[in-house]
Amino acid sequence: MTDPLVLFMPSGKRGRFPIGTPVMEAARRLGVRVESVCGGRGACGACQIDVHSGRFAKHGITSTSRNLSAPAAKELEYAERRKLKPGRRLSCQATIQGDLVIDVPQDVTVNAQIVRKGTSGRTIDRSPAIRLCYTEVEVPDMQKPRGDAERLIEALCRDWGLERLGIEPSLLAGLQATLRSGRWTVTAAIHDDPQSGPPHIVALWPGLKNEAYGIACDIGSTTIAMHLVSLVSGRVAASAGAANPQIGFGEDLMSRVSYVMMNPGGRTELTAAVRGAINDLIAKVCGDADASAADILDAVFVGNPVMHHLFLGIDPTELGGAPFALAVSGPIHGRAADFELSINPNARLYVLPCIAGHVGADAAAAILAEGPHRQDEMMLLVDVGTNAEIVLGNRNRVVVCSSPTGPAFEGAEISSGQRAAPGAIERVRIDPATLEPRYRVIGVEPWSDEPGFEEAARAFGVTGICGSGIIEVMAEMFLAGLISEDGIINGALATRSSRVIPHGRTFSYVLRAGEPVISVTQADVRAVQLAKAALYAGVKLLMQKQGVTAVDRIHLAGAFGSFIDARYAMVLGLIPDCALDCVASVGNAAGEGALMALLNRDYRREIEDEVRRIEKIETALAPDFQSFFVEAMALPNKTDAFPKLAAAMGLPERTASSRRRTATGRPGP
Amino acid sequence: MTDPLVLFMPSGKRGRFPIGTPVMEAARRLGVRVESVCGGRGACGACQIDVHSGRFAKHGITSTSRNLSAPAAKELEYAERRKLKPGRRLSCQATIQGDLVIDVPQDVTVNAQIVRKGTSGRTIDRSPAIRLCYTEVEVPDMQKPRGDAERLIEALCRDWGLERLGIEPSLLAGLQATLRSGRWTVTAAIHDDPQSGPPHIVALWPGLKNEAYGIACDIGSTTIAMHLVSLVSGRVAASAGAANPQIGFGEDLMSRVSYVMMNPGGRTELTAAVRGAINDLIAKVCGDADASAADILDAVFVGNPVMHHLFLGIDPTELGGAPFALAVSGPIHGRAADFELSINPNARLYVLPCIAGHVGADAAAAILAEGPHRQDEMMLLVDVGTNAEIVLGNRNRVVVCSSPTGPAFEGAEISSGQRAAPGAIERVRIDPATLEPRYRVIGVEPWSDEPGFEEAARAFGVTGICGSGIIEVMAEMFLAGLISEDGIINGALATRSSRVIPHGRTFSYVLRAGEPVISVTQADVRAVQLAKAALYAGVKLLMQKQGVTAVDRIHLAGAFGSFIDARYAMVLGLIPDCALDCVASVGNAAGEGALMALLNRDYRREIEDEVRRIEKIETALAPDFQSFFVEAMALPNKTDAFPKLAAAMGLPERTASSRRRTATGRPGP
Repeated sequence: MTDPLVLFMPSGKRGRFPIGTPVMEAARRLGVRVESVCGGRGACGACQIDVHSGRFAKHGITSTSRNLSAPAAKELEYAERRKLKPGRRLSCQATIQGDLVIDVPQDVTVNAQIVRKGTSGRTIDRSPAIRLCYTEVEVPDMQKPRGDAERLIEALCRDWGLERLGIEPSLLAGLQATLRSGRWTVTAAIHDDPQSGPPHIVALWPGLKNEAYGIACDIGSTTIAMHLVSLVSGRVAASAGAANPQIGFGEDLMSRVSYVMMNPGGRTELTAAVRGAINDLIAKVCGDADASAADILDAVFVGNPVMHHLFLGIDPTELGGAPFALAVSGPIHGRAADFELSINPNARLYVLPCIAGHVGADAAAAILAEGPHRQDEMMLLVDVGTNAEIVLGNRNRVVVCSSPTGPAFEGAEISSGQRAAPGAIERVRIDPATLEPRYRVIGVEPWSDEPGFEEAARAFGVTGICGSGIIEVMAEMFLAGLISEDGIINGALATRSSRVIPHGRTFSYVLRAGEPVISVTQADVRAVQLAKAALYAGVKLLMQKQGVTAVDRIHLAGAFGSFIDARYAMVLGLIPDCALDCVASVGNAAGEGALMALLNRDYRREIEDEVRRIEKIETALAPDFQSFFVEAMALPNKTDAFPKLAAAMGLPERTASSRRRTATGRPGP
Repeated sequence: MTDPLVLFMPSGKRGRFPIGTPVMEAARRLGVRVESVCGGRGACGACQIDVHSGRFAKHGITSTSRNLSAPAAKELEYAERRKLKPGRRLSCQATIQGDLVIDVPQDVTVNAQIVRKGTSGRTIDRSPAIRLCYTEVEVPDMQKPRGDAERLIEALCRDWGLERLGIEPSLLAGLQATLRSGRWTVTAAIHDDPQSGPPHIVALWPGLKNEAYGIACDIGSTTIAMHLVSLVSGRVAASAGAANPQIGFGEDLMSRVSYVMMNPGGRTELTAAVRGAINDLIAKVCGDADASAADILDAVFVGNPVMHHLFLGIDPTELGGAPFALAVSGPIHGRAADFELSINPNARLYVLPCIAGHVGADAAAAILAEGPHRQDEMMLLVDVGTNAEIVLGNRNRVVVCSSPTGPAFEGAEISSGQRAAPGAIERVRIDPATLEPRYRVIGVEPWSDEPGFEEAARAFGVTGICGSGIIEVMAEMFLAGLISEDGIINGALATRSSRVIPHGRTFSYVLRAGEPVISVTQADVRAVQLAKAALYAGVKLLMQKQGVTAVDRIHLAGAFGSFIDARYAMVLGLIPDCALDCVASVGNAAGEGALMALLNRDYRREIEDEVRRIEKIETALAPDFQSFFVEAMALPNKTDAFPKLAAAMGLPERTASSRRRTATGRPGP
């Protein structure tokens, strides 16, 4: 007689197994993920399954719940105690008695897969560095006088296939009481990240414990973002963000480095500030998820090199000047307690590697999330802040650089610029015929030319232009002919529009009259030109390194990438030409990468290996960077065409040969 | 032409090496230990050698200092800077140019071998878990943006043959300043004990650092003993001991366990007390050796199970009753900072394994020091305190047990008993003819019957009898016929000596009249009988397990073993018959074992393996223990003969068959 055929859904994996095989064992042999905390003792309920009843002609299976063994005592007990849904079975207890189609339900938290919210929709397999392992420990025996810790370790190694398992010495104090209050049953949280040594018990609870958490944190210069994640189910239990209080010591990175250099104790202050903010966020996500901070057992951090160093308590002064030496570039494996985090004192800490003095663990995390190294297409990944981190590559080769874009894209050094906040203009359109603008303000629903705008805008006022607004207004001015390819505001148009007004020896464009006047000055245009030229020159440098003249895909990461309209970025020449549907805003890719490293240790190895492989290009040492920069001062660029953008927007295609002006900013002949 | 012949003294190792071979390399190839901190850079001076000049006919060598290369620039520089003795050369710089007889001088601290002070005279090879490694680190390079930590690790791995080297995260904060102040030269202290994970940098100094320390500490219930040891040379830099302040919470172990059980916070108090005393000792040994506590990088501890638990912060309550479950029995690898030790915060801590609930890490350390498992002879190793830890074995098999001897051997529960301190009688002789005693008092030079005794004794008075005095007076009373084999003080002798006086329904022997009267009562004799019977019964149980009727060698460890006269111990039957020259007092064997584990990691593996192999016998569960105990109440024993003792002391040999009385204490027929 042939063995019964078993088909698992939704994975579609199938195989034949002898009658009497536990369903969990069949699943494991086929590589179907069925979770378990209790190690198959019918105690944790994590391995629930459903049976599909009916004839599945395509597979040649007639499945019925009678083809499973009758519920065992442990299942009945669990069903009563924990209210198992009707029809649900525990796969560790139920055995195969005939053909079956089995569903691994996604509502059981431990089986919920993590679906990427970004562009790829990729699922993240779970293999966290911390896992919960339930076991039953032998009682003490005077004839075999091994310690309680040794019997615990023996039981865990036996039940969970571990070797060389150690225990955190600080747990020894509470060990005996825990074992006795759990009547020799216990759940251990085991840290198992081979890179940092043999597996290690980091927490213990009497009896069965079904939940533990980790945090993934992106420490940005401006914003700190945190996810609280169940390490058992992979579910994101809460997310929160907060301003980085280091802003009080300096808006941008270099001013914070200066603060450390100028003030004795400055490093300590900045470290305390960022750790304090992180602890506040921990309290917030725990409150939101009704979780205990003592149940947080793993913590993954990413950040740019200066944030990385300050968080770790390292003086960032060396990052302030050439050769921009990182104190440490590799991954950090540590104990949370050593970094004053208000979580379980034995929790582990992992910090992703940095790539170079200006390309940090946040960039590494973004690469991990977007995965240029996992695909064939030539992907450009850009994260723009005060510095732009630029990554270009595919599975063959990845190159990165950092380019000093300055703060213009964040609205700083722009006459009417401001942070993205209610009252800031974020969207702009200019009628090429009348040169009249219309715009949208953060926090205000209607556009400026729609009914009710002024009333709605009164709540916050209209106070300035944020980063995305700067890009749009400049692109629209360029498209309307208000700005030349060289970036000159055309004073001759003052005769056609009262919005073009003289401003010293140059001209400005008034976006909104009133209090305050919001306008774009020639100096503003120059600031954006410098910023975009720095970005584009970095991209060009990497394209040169890769020997390509076009990229297949552009991912824009970070807050800037989230709000910017890719078309306008391309109109101004911030990024190279690319099919618009291949340009994506990917949000906080760094935070996403941190989450991946939290949920699966394999991603840690992947990015560690990749960072070693990545080629870092130092723009300051690259002979062609300066000429790329000069060419990129032109709008969109002196030498590059943007045929895909032109086609998509119905614009006439400009080519390098059609240009009449130089890129120096002076009118040509 | 044959290569030059090189002979190393004092090891006598020899070999031929091509002209130009550095002497250090020749030494290493022959397995001659030549130390180096700087890795052969002529910087540390650890590898000094001398050349013997002359014709060594026996070896066929004519050696002259001209057969070494002329001093190199680095040698001359070192000689000037550090005052190299005339004739001395650095073996890393000097190369072989002809036949040589080379002396590895023992006055260079790093070459000093550790000679065991105990009985074996064995040398301890050094292979400490912490070693100092000097290296030169590549300067930062913008083209290769690895962190300073990564370049440091790379340099150390390259120069010192390390793999998977990690760094303590807390060192990252000071790393950049250290590298720069040392001009990219640095000495790293590397912890490398494979059992606790990959090698790890635990301390860093700019430039060359030539010294680091470790401590080895035996935490006794009464006394804490500590050695401060150079990890570079192996030299014991200072030793000190102090009373265990836990005595204030209870004289013996069980009263301290009771204190913890009865007092909330009691465990915390006792832990703080012992750690405080250890920190005081650390300050003392550092002061004595003019060493900095921050240079102490490794710490090895041993102690009985209750001391072990309290030091580690573990509640010892479970050790107070069956099944006497240890919280942990295996070795502890930890960080000193987690145990509040006032040494380098990154220092490591190692605690030897415990053997059973009553046989602790101190017993394991004593076994390591005395090495029954390393030899063919059947060795009995006894450490007597409130419990006796008894070990019997050879390389084939080692068995251990613990027997509850009670405090009689320490002078407690004895009417005139006291601790070993000035004023205590420690030696006694009784004239069998006159029954008159003479004795010696701690702190007083003459015996009691010698001129000047009474004057000298006035300083402290004569206040009682200490443990060794109890043994001697009882043995002498037995030899003089004052006590029968059953332990009865013979009241009939009151007619011959006024020192035998009635005391209720029994008799006492007055050792010293005056204030206070110091006498031996019948109850005192009973207390010693019970104690010695417990000890002897434990020994008999182990002999039964081993299937032997005699032992080859007896090692008496601890304070008791140091002061007791082995002959008297045998006369009373504390220990079995043995040739007197095979009975040795070995002092603080536990402290010696701790020192060995500090100086050589291999000893840690040796004792860990041995503890797993050792068979632990629980006396309470052994069917024959009770009958052995009853037999051992007789003096020296009801069933065993002591022919070797009798021969050595010129006594008539008593045999079991010659006995007239039972061992119950009542006169027989």
